[in-house]
Amino acid sequence: MKAKKITEKRILELLDDPQFNLIAAESPWAFADEIEAVNQYLMATTPKLPEHLRAVQPQQTRIVGRRVARIEDPDRLTGQAIFTTDVRLPGMLHTAILHSPHAHALIENIDTSAAEALPGVRAVLTYKNVLKERIGGPPDMFILNQEIHFAGEEVAAVAAEDIHTAREAAGLIRVTYRVLPSVTDAEAALAPGAPDLGHGAEGIARGNQLAMSYPLTKRGNFDTAYAGAAVKHEGTYRTSTLQHATLEPRAAVALWHGPDQLTVWASTQYIMGVRAELATTFGLPRSHVRVICQHMGGGFGDKSSSVRQGRIAAILARMTQRPVRVEYDRQLNFNAASHRYATVVKLQAGADRGGKLAAYRADAISDSGAYAAFSLADVMVSLVRTYHAENAHFQQVSALTNRGPSGFQRCVGNPQGTFCQDIFMDELAEKAGMDPLDFRLANVETKVDQDRKLPWASCGIVECLQEGAKAIGWRQKWHKPGAAITGSKAHGIGMTAHACAHGSMAFPMTAMMKIDRDGSLDVIQSTTDIGGGQSTQMMMIGAETVGVRLEDAHPSYGDSAFTADSVGTYGSLQTMTGGSAVRVAGLDLKWRILQQATKPLPPKNAPLLPGKPEDLDTGDGFVFLKADPSKRVPIRDVVASTGGPMMGQGAHTIPAGYGMSTFAAGFAEVEVDLDTGDVRLLRYVAANDVGKAVNRLGVEQQIEGASSMGIGMVLGEEMKFDGPGNFPVNWNWENYAMPTVLETPKWADYKPIIVEPGDAIGPYGAKGVGEPPTSPPAPAIANAIYNAIGVRIHDAPITRDKVLAGLAQIRRG
Amino acid sequence: MKAKKITEKRILELLDDPQFNLIAAESPWAFADEIEAVNQYLMATTPKLPEHLRAVQPQQTRIVGRRVARIEDPDRLTGQAIFTTDVRLPGMLHTAILHSPHAHALIENIDTSAAEALPGVRAVLTYKNVLKERIGGPPDMFILNQEIHFAGEEVAAVAAEDIHTAREAAGLIRVTYRVLPSVTDAEAALAPGAPDLGHGAEGIARGNQLAMSYPLTKRGNFDTAYAGAAVKHEGTYRTSTLQHATLEPRAAVALWHGPDQLTVWASTQYIMGVRAELATTFGLPRSHVRVICQHMGGGFGDKSSSVRQGRIAAILARMTQRPVRVEYDRQLNFNAASHRYATVVKLQAGADRGGKLAAYRADAISDSGAYAAFSLADVMVSLVRTYHAENAHFQQVSALTNRGPSGFQRCVGNPQGTFCQDIFMDELAEKAGMDPLDFRLANVETKVDQDRKLPWASCGIVECLQEGAKAIGWRQKWHKPGAAITGSKAHGIGMTAHACAHGSMAFPMTAMMKIDRDGSLDVIQSTTDIGGGQSTQMMMIGAETVGVRLEDAHPSYGDSAFTADSVGTYGSLQTMTGGSAVRVAGLDLKWRILQQATKPLPPKNAPLLPGKPEDLDTGDGFVFLKADPSKRVPIRDVVASTGGPMMGQGAHTIPAGYGMSTFAAGFAEVEVDLDTGDVRLLRYVAANDVGKAVNRLGVEQQIEGASSMGIGMVLGEEMKFDGPGNFPVNWNWENYAMPTVLETPKWADYKPIIVEPGDAIGPYGAKGVGEPPTSPPAPAIANAIYNAIGVRIHDAPITRDKVLAGLAQIRRG
Repeated sequence: MKAKKITEKRILELLDDPQFNLIAAESPWAFADEIEAVNQYLMATTPKLPEHLRAVQPQQTRIVGRRVARIEDPDRLTGQAIFTTDVRLPGMLHTAILHSPHAHALIENIDTSAAEALPGVRAVLTYKNVLKERIGGPPDMFILNQEIHFAGEEVAAVAAEDIHTAREAAGLIRVTYRVLPSVTDAEAALAPGAPDLGHGAEGIARGNQLAMSYPLTKRGNFDTAYAGAAVKHEGTYRTSTLQHATLEPRAAVALWHGPDQLTVWASTQYIMGVRAELATTFGLPRSHVRVICQHMGGGFGDKSSSVRQGRIAAILARMTQRPVRVEYDRQLNFNAASHRYATVVKLQAGADRGGKLAAYRADAISDSGAYAAFSLADVMVSLVRTYHAENAHFQQVSALTNRGPSGFQRCVGNPQGTFCQDIFMDELAEKAGMDPLDFRLANVETKVDQDRKLPWASCGIVECLQEGAKAIGWRQKWHKPGAAITGSKAHGIGMTAHACAHGSMAFPMTAMMKIDRDGSLDVIQSTTDIGGGQSTQMMMIGAETVGVRLEDAHPSYGDSAFTADSVGTYGSLQTMTGGSAVRVAGLDLKWRILQQATKPLPPKNAPLLPGKPEDLDTGDGFVFLKADPSKRVPIRDVVASTGGPMMGQGAHTIPAGYGMSTFAAGFAEVEVDLDTGDVRLLRYVAANDVGKAVNRLGVEQQIEGASSMGIGMVLGEEMKFDGPGNFPVNWNWENYAMPTVLETPKWADYKPIIVEPGDAIGPYGAKGVGEPPTSPPAPAIANAIYNAIGVRIHDAPITRDKVLAGLAQIRRG
Repeated sequence: MKAKKITEKRILELLDDPQFNLIAAESPWAFADEIEAVNQYLMATTPKLPEHLRAVQPQQTRIVGRRVARIEDPDRLTGQAIFTTDVRLPGMLHTAILHSPHAHALIENIDTSAAEALPGVRAVLTYKNVLKERIGGPPDMFILNQEIHFAGEEVAAVAAEDIHTAREAAGLIRVTYRVLPSVTDAEAALAPGAPDLGHGAEGIARGNQLAMSYPLTKRGNFDTAYAGAAVKHEGTYRTSTLQHATLEPRAAVALWHGPDQLTVWASTQYIMGVRAELATTFGLPRSHVRVICQHMGGGFGDKSSSVRQGRIAAILARMTQRPVRVEYDRQLNFNAASHRYATVVKLQAGADRGGKLAAYRADAISDSGAYAAFSLADVMVSLVRTYHAENAHFQQVSALTNRGPSGFQRCVGNPQGTFCQDIFMDELAEKAGMDPLDFRLANVETKVDQDRKLPWASCGIVECLQEGAKAIGWRQKWHKPGAAITGSKAHGIGMTAHACAHGSMAFPMTAMMKIDRDGSLDVIQSTTDIGGGQSTQMMMIGAETVGVRLEDAHPSYGDSAFTADSVGTYGSLQTMTGGSAVRVAGLDLKWRILQQATKPLPPKNAPLLPGKPEDLDTGDGFVFLKADPSKRVPIRDVVASTGGPMMGQGAHTIPAGYGMSTFAAGFAEVEVDLDTGDVRLLRYVAANDVGKAVNRLGVEQQIEGASSMGIGMVLGEEMKFDGPGNFPVNWNWENYAMPTVLETPKWADYKPIIVEPGDAIGPYGAKGVGEPPTSPPAPAIANAIYNAIGVRIHDAPITRDKVLAGLAQIRRG
């Protein structure tokens, strides 16, 4: 891949764009040159970890690696947690949002007079009186649009004294739509003669229907290598549109303090991004916008920016001079929030006689949904990095359709890509006559980012495969496809190998810290805890680095008025980004503590401890001599001698010269009912390379949560559209089939395996784990179903009717 | 005064005690040795302003000295400000407090069964089931007491689903009191045969009734000097019990997060003090207690600690596992909140023939109220420092009575002391045959703290006297007492000279700061803005120091989870304490900005500006070359080149070797109605030495506000007690006569004069002004009344009946 030239001007633009981090985190493969250029720039412009801080790094870990319950558990488990939707302000107005019944339509007339006349209504917002601003992310999407691009799109917002009045008023708005032709399938949208989706004027990358076309990644010569391969295989694989289905819907509460100060409580994964967006929207200095998010009821990628809800709340609040609360109802949240995009991947590969991959080609089409730019090149990320292939060709395009806007959903395109890839590899292994495990052990890439030629900062994929196989009993349990049928029950086992870029770093990485006179520590950082225990992890890294007891530390949550910036909680990057920042701020504070401990103090003009700062270490609340740990003083005495809190601050930079990746393997054991087509997941083993587990309990919970989302993708989840308007029909939890405890393995049959090779650049060797476990379950289960019944199903979800249809075909066959 | 020996152990105890700052700030005279020892210790233990930060101090001020509207005005003026009493949490319980009808009684039995049985009641707290903890401040006061020491004292607290149920339940509590003898007058309490107030066992300083006796301050030999003086005078003066009458009463909302994390929204002047108190109460690390206070509806000294309300809320919340809100009702707040203590001062002085003070003696008794330690030696503070007296004797004792607990109220004991002193000095001037202005110009101390022999860091008292006299037209208007009567109206003019210790420093002085990529600045500091514009001032000092435009800066409020610590907003010390901390944090950030600006950056490996950091300065949002300001780059470009926010932090130390004092003069012009005794304040001039005005508008507002409180003290305010229980009878705003716009001069006739000698240690030469203007009005008005009618009234308030009684005496005369 030839590097693009990125100018200094472009670098500074990227540094100033909160969306860049988002996109870079989710699509490092497509933005590799930009990321590299920004990293190189930052390496040159910002200080590396200074020598004096290197010298005071802890000699051993005391806290990192423990099992720690999340600090927010008491609030969440007792129902006392205050989410954005729980914020109640005096005089607060409530908002109802009217949405479109059509997938594609032009608003010819909109009459809000009856709504405005209803007593209790304070403001009505439509495309006519809303600020005309393109909103972050999709460049062709405005705060409200006249041309509607998906069924369920926001058309008008009503602020009223109570939600009932607001809803009644929304029902009184009369809209005349000119219904336009729509399309909800990416392949159909790209086909000749497809309807015009009306995006022409709004700056779509290329053509009318093509939201984005990412650069082709080529290595060697695919065609020649494929032609000469001993074993060849090709196939086409499909995944469906999926939902985050966050417990807490999109929500924001806005409060103005005069014309130039704004506070927004937002259910967001990135407070600083929302702050920057809103500052731009209203032309304010960022310091005059305050964004607060403590508890969040799920983000999963949907809440990476303020999108419409934050701006609608702030605009209505400015119009009415009242606090305004916006909460999407369940239907609106299913329809208008972003979702995992449907994908079609055509794969083609050849291997040598030993089963070594010789040529690999992937062509993907992803469904961008109604607006451009949220559908990224993520489908390719796991494809370019999991398997070693010297001759390769990878291409992805994304098409505009009239589905709701696509977006980031836990691991973004990787579950789609890996689903397709690892069924395909299973098939190729079979053609090569190899055990699926041996095939993967022979072909996974363990050393480098093949395109950037950069060594992995850590790689535990082989250990993931070996330990996972051992745990599930692969060698004992794997059998020929369809060879373990007892009565109407077929037993099967399947696996996946996976690598993705999630868990990498982004910028900025900044944090602050203070320690009080009693030796207790406040870790002040901007991380939104989206339920993954991020705050607890920051607290652990902070306490470890400064050397206080864990029970004396406490993490802040993100409040843009007070905290520094460590990017959003997405891309599994908070361990790297927030964790590194907290570590550096902690070292800064520790160094100041050691300086104070070795400084002559009155009345005897003697220091608390002899020697130089670098002769000392801290731990368990004490400063002690490295050479003789029995010579120690409590940290609180050192702090108290200064009279006040001591503070630390840190900005970290991204080390260049490494490829960064996370690795995983998944192993599934299923029982398929040959009469009903029902698939029962008996056992699931998730092995994840996390570099080093900061909080073992938290890592296990992340693995379990992400795995469940992956299981849902194959065992039933699928958004369905129907009728002339292509309206979503299963927009609630009754009809959208998420896996419950009945569909996921019981705890005893669920095994998370933590692989810890130690990362060269992560804090204490750690890297992220929030997303990587999402991808392996679906192909592992699909491969296990094949192993059970001998039928290959290429399209997710694998429903009963697909299983039964496959079985019928075999019986017929 | 012989210095006490303060041990290192004692110094560390003081450093760890949030009450020490409070007491030291309010009574520096009594704790001079402790303060000096702590300052000397901190000077040795903490770093002075480093050389590199000295080198980057701004060359000129651009923001300090402007007139700036308070940042919180939009919130306050539109009613959107969220005070503690506006906090609403899901599931929050409301609290009613039952209080005692007796001034002194023992609870023999308390039956809460009927209250507990009322539906909706969740918990009832009495002395029996409350945590037995002495609360900060009065060492003999528990969270709830079995022996009641004042009428209106809290007896029980009921938490219920709504306030009506809570109040009904409080009314169902049956208390059997054994009524004990009570006393509500300090002199009577100290007289032989006074009733036993039952404090014997609780660690009162000396004897049963004596709350505190402060060390005698002696200079030279009073008795000898007095005996030889040419002119002699003595007199006894009295002031009354006064009320803060804050708009927002005492209030707190407590929320537990499991057993070891507590959040409290508190109406408090010192979040970090309340955090430390609550951490001690519940045995938690301070980092696990979060105290938040944004808007405050008045503090005036009453809200320096959490006292009972914060602990009651937190204990009830822990018992019920629900958020709990406590708000004192108006009656309870008048009775149980602290107040300005009544004082009796006996003064005696001699002067030479030229009117120079030769000997000066003061003996004061102050009324400590129901509990010890809140009544400090403040009555003496202005006496020991305002006038030069080489032979002097100053002593104050404070007596326990059955009034409500005394406490800090704006300028604490100084209004009492100065009321007494400056009527006395007026009388002495008359005996010496001198014009009151000349007498004061001849006798005020302009150079040093006479007892510590330390030079004032600034002193503008002479300019205050001269400028104030000019503004009121003293030389034209002063006349012989009773010499300007027209019909039934008598005209008079009077004055005061005043010095006090408010505006001094305390510890810790720490702050943080961050600047975003758009060049906008967040000033992160712990100051509670109690309505005096403290936040705006911090924002101005921060913006000035870093060099951003004022409109790009924003101040935080105090939130203990995020902010450093700059002590409470009391003692007029935030300008010195918070301001100095913000300045040092700003210099730290500025230095980092200048370093980055002069560092080679890619792609050309050239710095943004040539030279070394110390060759540059900042202002108006730019970094520029001192030698050629046209060579400049925007600060935002420098920050953006680092990729993220830049941060600064600062801890300041108290410079030793200076005496610190604020100075003021007050001039009043009155008209007395000889028929009705009514006193009309025609004009008031307040001249205050503020070192340097940071925010001129804010300073004027502080002067006006404090003057109004001083005016109320002489023109009508007085708590009255009646009946066998000595119950307060005027416990609301209808009956407690605070001055309204009708009693205070109209804006056009009210003149604040700002004297700016520049302080050697305050930030940008500034010192505090929140309290010093409180003291001059009362004696100036009293002296003006004398000038009008020729009758001396020695007791505040000067009511119509006192004026008429005086006139009648003269007529009888």
